[in-house]
Amino acid sequence: MVKVADIMAGDMKNARENSIQESGSIFPEFHKIIQRSDKETYLKQRSRVIWLTGLSGSGKTTLGSYLEKELFSMGYLTQMLDGDNIRSGINANLSFSDEDRRENIRRIAEVSKLFLHCGIIVISCFISPTREIRAMARKIIGPEDFLEIYVNAPLEICEQRDVKGLYKLARNGKISDFTGIDSPFEAPANCNLEIRTDQLTVKESSRQLLDFVLPWIRNGR
Amino acid sequence: MVKVADIMAGDMKNARENSIQESGSIFPEFHKIIQRSDKETYLKQRSRVIWLTGLSGSGKTTLGSYLEKELFSMGYLTQMLDGDNIRSGINANLSFSDEDRRENIRRIAEVSKLFLHCGIIVISCFISPTREIRAMARKIIGPEDFLEIYVNAPLEICEQRDVKGLYKLARNGKISDFTGIDSPFEAPANCNLEIRTDQLTVKESSRQLLDFVLPWIRNGR
Repeated sequence: MVKVADIMAGDMKNARENSIQESGSIFPEFHKIIQRSDKETYLKQRSRVIWLTGLSGSGKTTLGSYLEKELFSMGYLTQMLDGDNIRSGINANLSFSDEDRRENIRRIAEVSKLFLHCGIIVISCFISPTREIRAMARKIIGPEDFLEIYVNAPLEICEQRDVKGLYKLARNGKISDFTGIDSPFEAPANCNLEIRTDQLTVKESSRQLLDFVLPWIRNGR
Repeated sequence: MVKVADIMAGDMKNARENSIQESGSIFPEFHKIIQRSDKETYLKQRSRVIWLTGLSGSGKTTLGSYLEKELFSMGYLTQMLDGDNIRSGINANLSFSDEDRRENIRRIAEVSKLFLHCGIIVISCFISPTREIRAMARKIIGPEDFLEIYVNAPLEICEQRDVKGLYKLARNGKISDFTGIDSPFEAPANCNLEIRTDQLTVKESSRQLLDFVLPWIRNGR
């Protein structure tokens, strides 16, 4: 039996173009929906996905928020994705099992891709603990648009910070599968940038991130 | 046992704000991430979700594409969501069972909400066949931002058009659970706008949609 999903995913674009051609083209350019490049030109920016990976407490969301604010003040349009708007929304029905962690990152990558193709700079802040799931994200998004930033602080420092109190819960056995405690974190082998948040101030870390990102997103400015 | 997902979804924002306060506020306004209203002001538009519902072949994607093009030419930033970019991406792992149809629409509504909060006008083109799943979408997105447009053409007309060849497959038993054939479509009871694409030309239908949408998205223009 033919699967509707396959037909819709694969053939819809052709079907639509054919139907428009057959229907007599009231709008000659009609089948051309607005492209990513049109939106990038309009927004005077190149869209990219800035993917912050690192342990809980390493500073991903802090740096991501700062970056969004700095970029917005310079006239760049961004979208932050983090636990606040993902785990409470599209991924509310996922657990922290290995399978669901993978699905979590898959959906985040797909959402990132939609924003990317709308011309928007995405700042994704997720632990994304293994090389395999980051490779999956890179593949979904496209390697040329995926900037992997390793927000690096040693486990001891992150555990001292323990801003959400989660390390304490994990050490006391109140939560399980917690990255760094009873679930692995694999440091990136080939990230685009590493930021040592244990050695730099927030201001210095943020500056390093901003300086790295700007050349990737400039578009006729 | 405490669920990490609940902690992260519910308490993260507070946790972050507390941690920033405790860490001595290098950036006084730092906890304030860029708000929807800031982005709407920057883009000179009000974001909304324009939700096109109707049978396969009723003209949802045609009208949605036209609307996106018209709005872009007027300087509005939009995001089309339809089978092309959803069923092949974030919802590639869903079937057409009742449960998966619901999950399909839930995820689309959550993605729409993310774009909405980024200040972007969303044009969602999905059959969304039942009142219950449209009510779910409305609830997720927020009723004040959800504009339900019924793209209405009788089944016979949609089946004659059969732009994707799906009605033929459904009639021949090659696909099952096809809306209008062996799966129900419930017409909206209280939509914001009904467009009779069997009685109007594409140009007239598109004009009707554009005229309806413009007052909802104007912002200081």
